[in-house]
Amino acid sequence: MNSIFHALGDGTRRQMLRDLASGERTVSELAKPFAMSLAAASKHIRVLEGAGLIRREVRGRTHVCRLEPGPLASAHEWLGFYERFWTDRLDILDRLLREDDARDATRETRKGDDQ
Amino acid sequence: MNSIFHALGDGTRRQMLRDLASGERTVSELAKPFAMSLAAASKHIRVLEGAGLIRREVRGRTHVCRLEPGPLASAHEWLGFYERFWTDRLDILDRLLREDDARDATRETRKGDDQ
Repeated sequence: MNSIFHALGDGTRRQMLRDLASGERTVSELAKPFAMSLAAASKHIRVLEGAGLIRREVRGRTHVCRLEPGPLASAHEWLGFYERFWTDRLDILDRLLREDDARDATRETRKGDDQ
Repeated sequence: MNSIFHALGDGTRRQMLRDLASGERTVSELAKPFAMSLAAASKHIRVLEGAGLIRREVRGRTHVCRLEPGPLASAHEWLGFYERFWTDRLDILDRLLREDDARDATRETRKGDDQ
């Protein structure tokens, strides 16, 4: 889990995963959008590979990368444990907004009565 | 997002968050389960605080920490984008298992016919 979250803690690597969500990419295709050397991009790719987030396949002279969703699912599940915390907050926010709406509606009715 | 995932990329910090899920903890309570100095534990707490994952409140002489679910929700949502990848895989696994069951059932029926 350390290596998964560590790999995700970098904007370049997260963007690479987003690109791979649309399909396979060669190493140079993955590196292209970034203003960095191929060596620097390769280093990021190796971190993603080390965390099991992507799989690299050698096809002749090109290295083709594919997304491996398993570790993303594990991280998602780990975070899901805390879901009740933000759902509870949203419930409270929702209730407050409803109460506010109800108050406004009462005020509008009274204004109507005055006219 | 970098600081959130970076903070989550450490087992001690993840354990601290799990502890805080049960309620508020003082800095020394949070440090207790770990075989490390209070200074080392405080450093981890500062990383969590820096990522907005916890909030620290000074009450007299004690520092009380509380879980802040917002950044966990953001990370969960970011990972949720990939949900279709593992759901698709589970669907495929489910179909394969069903087909396997169906084959077994057919085999059992035939065996029954033979007897």
